[in-house]
Amino acid sequence: MVYGEKLIAQTLHDLGVRVIFGLPGLPVIDIAQEGMNLGIRFVAFRNEQAAAYAATAYGYLTGRPGICIAVGGPGVLHVMTGLPHATVNCWPLLVLGGSSETHNGGKGAFQELDAISLLTPHAKLAIRPPDPDTIPKFIKDAYRAAMYGRPGPAFVDLPANLILGTFDVERKKMMALPEAPKSMAPDNKIRDIVNALRGAKAPLLVVGKGAAYSRAETQIRTLVDRAGIPFFPTPMAKGITADSSPYNFSAARSTAMKQTDIVLVLGARLNWILSFGLPPKWSPTVKIIQVDFAADELGKNGGDPELSVAGDIGLVVDQILKQIGTWKWQERNSDYYKALQMAKLRN
Amino acid sequence: MVYGEKLIAQTLHDLGVRVIFGLPGLPVIDIAQEGMNLGIRFVAFRNEQAAAYAATAYGYLTGRPGICIAVGGPGVLHVMTGLPHATVNCWPLLVLGGSSETHNGGKGAFQELDAISLLTPHAKLAIRPPDPDTIPKFIKDAYRAAMYGRPGPAFVDLPANLILGTFDVERKKMMALPEAPKSMAPDNKIRDIVNALRGAKAPLLVVGKGAAYSRAETQIRTLVDRAGIPFFPTPMAKGITADSSPYNFSAARSTAMKQTDIVLVLGARLNWILSFGLPPKWSPTVKIIQVDFAADELGKNGGDPELSVAGDIGLVVDQILKQIGTWKWQERNSDYYKALQMAKLRN
Amino acid sequence: MVYGEKLIAQTLHDLGVRVIFGLPGLPVIDIAQEGMNLGIRFVAFRNEQAAAYAATAYGYLTGRPGICIAVGGPGVLHVMTGLPHATVNCWPLLVLGGSSETHNGGKGAFQELDAISLLTPHAKLAIRPPDPDTIPKFIKDAYRAAMYGRPGPAFVDLPANLILGTFDVERKKMMALPEAPKSMAPDNKIRDIVNALRGAKAPLLVVGKGAAYSRAETQIRTLVDRAGIPFFPTPMAKGITADSSPYNFSAARSTAMKQTDIVLVLGARLNWILSFGLPPKWSPTVKIIQVDFAADELGKNGGDPELSVAGDIGLVVDQILKQIGTWKWQERNSDYYKALQMAKLRN
Amino acid sequence: MVYGEKLIAQTLHDLGVRVIFGLPGLPVIDIAQEGMNLGIRFVAFRNEQAAAYAATAYGYLTGRPGICIAVGGPGVLHVMTGLPHATVNCWPLLVLGGSSETHNGGKGAFQELDAISLLTPHAKLAIRPPDPDTIPKFIKDAYRAAMYGRPGPAFVDLPANLILGTFDVERKKMMALPEAPKSMAPDNKIRDIVNALRGAKAPLLVVGKGAAYSRAETQIRTLVDRAGIPFFPTPMAKGITADSSPYNFSAARSTAMKQTDIVLVLGARLNWILSFGLPPKWSPTVKIIQVDFAADELGKNGGDPELSVAGDIGLVVDQILKQIGTWKWQERNSDYYKALQMAKLRN
Repeated sequence: MVYGEKLIAQTLHDLGVRVIFGLPGLPVIDIAQEGMNLGIRFVAFRNEQAAAYAATAYGYLTGRPGICIAVGGPGVLHVMTGLPHATVNCWPLLVLGGSSETHNGGKGAFQELDAISLLTPHAKLAIRPPDPDTIPKFIKDAYRAAMYGRPGPAFVDLPANLILGTFDVERKKMMALPEAPKSMAPDNKIRDIVNALRGAKAPLLVVGKGAAYSRAETQIRTLVDRAGIPFFPTPMAKGITADSSPYNFSAARSTAMKQTDIVLVLGARLNWILSFGLPPKWSPTVKIIQVDFAADELGKNGGDPELSVAGDIGLVVDQILKQIGTWKWQERNSDYYKALQMAKLRN
Repeated sequence: MVYGEKLIAQTLHDLGVRVIFGLPGLPVIDIAQEGMNLGIRFVAFRNEQAAAYAATAYGYLTGRPGICIAVGGPGVLHVMTGLPHATVNCWPLLVLGGSSETHNGGKGAFQELDAISLLTPHAKLAIRPPDPDTIPKFIKDAYRAAMYGRPGPAFVDLPANLILGTFDVERKKMMALPEAPKSMAPDNKIRDIVNALRGAKAPLLVVGKGAAYSRAETQIRTLVDRAGIPFFPTPMAKGITADSSPYNFSAARSTAMKQTDIVLVLGARLNWILSFGLPPKWSPTVKIIQVDFAADELGKNGGDPELSVAGDIGLVVDQILKQIGTWKWQERNSDYYKALQMAKLRN
Repeated sequence: MVYGEKLIAQTLHDLGVRVIFGLPGLPVIDIAQEGMNLGIRFVAFRNEQAAAYAATAYGYLTGRPGICIAVGGPGVLHVMTGLPHATVNCWPLLVLGGSSETHNGGKGAFQELDAISLLTPHAKLAIRPPDPDTIPKFIKDAYRAAMYGRPGPAFVDLPANLILGTFDVERKKMMALPEAPKSMAPDNKIRDIVNALRGAKAPLLVVGKGAAYSRAETQIRTLVDRAGIPFFPTPMAKGITADSSPYNFSAARSTAMKQTDIVLVLGARLNWILSFGLPPKWSPTVKIIQVDFAADELGKNGGDPELSVAGDIGLVVDQILKQIGTWKWQERNSDYYKALQMAKLRN
Repeated sequence: MVYGEKLIAQTLHDLGVRVIFGLPGLPVIDIAQEGMNLGIRFVAFRNEQAAAYAATAYGYLTGRPGICIAVGGPGVLHVMTGLPHATVNCWPLLVLGGSSETHNGGKGAFQELDAISLLTPHAKLAIRPPDPDTIPKFIKDAYRAAMYGRPGPAFVDLPANLILGTFDVERKKMMALPEAPKSMAPDNKIRDIVNALRGAKAPLLVVGKGAAYSRAETQIRTLVDRAGIPFFPTPMAKGITADSSPYNFSAARSTAMKQTDIVLVLGARLNWILSFGLPPKWSPTVKIIQVDFAADELGKNGGDPELSVAGDIGLVVDQILKQIGTWKWQERNSDYYKALQMAKLRN
């Protein structure tokens, strides 16, 4: 016999969860309590909205779903805000929501709310275990959904009777999930990219937060140092490359965007932050090569669908490094490079 | 020529709006500014979630939509929480959300979010004016939708280009909307209700927050005083009747629920607060007569679908008063009344 | 011990269901079979889309939910079309959908689909009984939701294990629901309407399908004959009034719309069929008095929010008849009447 | 000056569209007409549901979105069924829906329906061009969204005023999109897979419809012939491999599933068709290696998250072929192989 709350906490612990964010309340507080007994840290908040935001940040930093617990009804409504936030940012988030007892379903029970219907449009997976036996599998499925593929939010609805009941469930230790699957680009596409870079008059690298999520710091620093191509990071990508790098032209961003003819964008979307990759901020003839883990992004706005590739930033930059060899961009005397230098000094 | 922001503020003013809740930010702050120029009070918050809650409370207290403004993207996500809140409570709420310029639609503009698709499942009406000319009509339609019928949330999406642009729109003063339409019950149903009350061995009145929304204080106090039927208010209905009334048996709530044979519920749902109107808290043979402005509620859980009526609480109690005449419940010596008195003294 | 399928069929029979529409398939075919054993007629279709349409038509004609059964997955997807159709037309519809066994939930079972999340945005109520005991109550709740208040679609998801299992459920005969609650308008509003009609230079009645749904034939014919006001029915309202009536000006529709100064619209929306109640088809100064069971409709487009009332068409026309007495519109020599007569002759 | 309908048809033609499915009706019929003028074939249906199904099949067979046009309102409701169908099957589908003129928005115009809100939960992208200039970009974006990443449905809402109007838009020929981006697996993962296959006592290949979508026939036939591993196709994967292959054990499916210790699943989900990859149909100790273009699928149900890889089936099988070299499975005398042979003969 096992308490539902214990089964839930053990499942989370098995999956490698060591921190839970949330707002304590019945019935989910018992999950937090059991979690703490297992050595999981519980970080309490005063509004589920903030707890969900914290959990998404944790997910971004660790590459594994940040966990957030919330009571049913208003708690789930407050936490709801965090789901589209996780979707937009592609950050892994797993919300566990308490809910009223199933046998009072449809009657207007305390904090009754069909959280599954509410959150299905906003989650990669929103599920409710139909019985105690399925609790571990359902939590694992949601955890995996949040983390694998394009990361995002997942939700598990846990009715009070499943949390607070005791059940004759045989407890099996679960294996933690390996890190999210990563992909590489086809070799011929890498060759095309390298040729494009080599042929560039005014090359540019843009480093985005996808590079941070991929932990591609080493590869990108190697590429920058070896190839000597001017770059700038997006606001969320600060720290991947050194601010002090001679190739860092953050201070010449507008000039770089306007004058580059071939740009390699590593893990950044071509949205307003990058002026959509479109004129007037960028040249009408620029070729923008996107490297993104989400194939859906390729060719969007100003992206070049022929040259862009889907894959893990670190692995793809490794592929590029292998083919680019010791080549170094030489045009230190070009108008482009001078313009960048001048703008950098000026700003 | 008129600024969009001015057109919006004037429309709100015409409709009778005198208070706006929200969090200032671009582009909606200009609506607030123009509103203040017209004498509308702007109540600023630090999170749109709280602003939306305040606006729903204002809607409950005034019977007219509380107005909440929010910036696009995160602002709309924060305000989203308030919409199901307004739906569940049947409170009128009108949210005006700013959004990114339409000509950058689909590109990932600053705070871009399709608020209409996001909020349509949560609003009585969620609309975006297609052009400047339709701004006044669209705002009025949403205002009306929030207020007429079962009150609830409505949403108008206002792209930055509509708010900040100047347009050749001929400004016509708009008439404020009359109060929400009210209905009465058929006379034969009122007769059945009165007969049931007259024949009751152990009658009970339950006064709910719907009675407050209907402003039925006078009618209900008259009914209580004239008919001398024991009553209790739900938590949200405090103040409609006098706490000091000799017929107020709030302190004997459980006894009343258990022993009554005919209960008239005025504007309260048979949810967990009223133990669903079902055994074991209520007698299995009790007849629960619901009076509710929403016909959808009649017959739910323990409600009697034969005797219950849809209509405005004030008007229906007026109808009952007309038919009940000077009748007064006489069973002061009944076991029921004694049990209520004892429980009241005890608690 | 009782089979789920039998419990479901008995519940439907208790509620008064005598016809079921649908496409036979596992597991819902067994519900149809049990229904036929109880004397319920099963009308089979070859696509659930058509079955749902038939059920909505049945709902319109009878005032009680048309019942449609569909298998899970593709069946539910096909039937989905019928739900917004029922919403738009305000017709009562109850869909019962089979679904895969709950213990395989989330695995990709045969025809697995979370029908509740799918259909919640399109239904007044979309629910799944959590256990066998709740089957009758959940079906009744959905049936009532479809029928009471503004009629529309409701959905019950019935997992295969609930349909095909045998359960120790005590079967209690359920009472059929009384007809949907009806409301009247406040007396002072009726007085205003009657005064407006009496003062009209060019009065008009428009009869809509809401009048048919309300079964207000007798009252409307009486009003037409007694008051002698020109009228026309909308396309769906044919048959409520006699085509041969001397007051029927269907053939002079455009003239009537253009020239009337006071129009009483009985159960019709001011949508494109009635040219929105707005210029240029209607006079800019016309007063359009709406009588509609849905208060949400009042004041929409060209409707006059001051004079319009919410209530059952039959009851409200009865109220009008009581106050209008023997008054008869006299202006047979008016330009308006002559124009109508001419247009009628011409067309 | 250009007609909207022509601009739409030219955009489709530029993108490479040569067939359109649909049901002719106003205003979308004019798109079909202009398309035919450009040499696009129009295949007419009598219900949009079937047209959408046909378009998804076309998308599956060609790897490019099948195009379906539908009128607004009921047409869009009928076509809606096809969207979740495309999602579940991962087939590219682009629906263009006509809709009522924007300036009558919210009034109840002919067939008025907010198709974007309706279909957003069911589409990868559901968008409406805000003005004529954005028509080509919006259609291209939706076309790309349907095709790139996990294929699925996309929707473009085209108001009648955009279709039927003439606009001063400068027409630029658009480049057709290259085929959807493909990925490979990391080399170390391929090495692990090859080692696992080499060490297998009872290896098995399962070929799924993902292999057909990837056009991986040559690679898979080479793998089968060279490595001599028993295989079977799923129902939708018939034809990728030869039915007559000596390694085809479709007739011994159950035996294979029960006895294999290492199985390589190429483009098939572990759903009910493959008994979820779980006992009792599969051995509790089987290792199931998934190769899938969607990383989200890896580790689901019985899948092994350590060994499974995300990538294009053809490219990944190429990677495997490179590492597996001339290795051939030798255990022709094993109990497993005999059991397969016997079952094949028996069935």
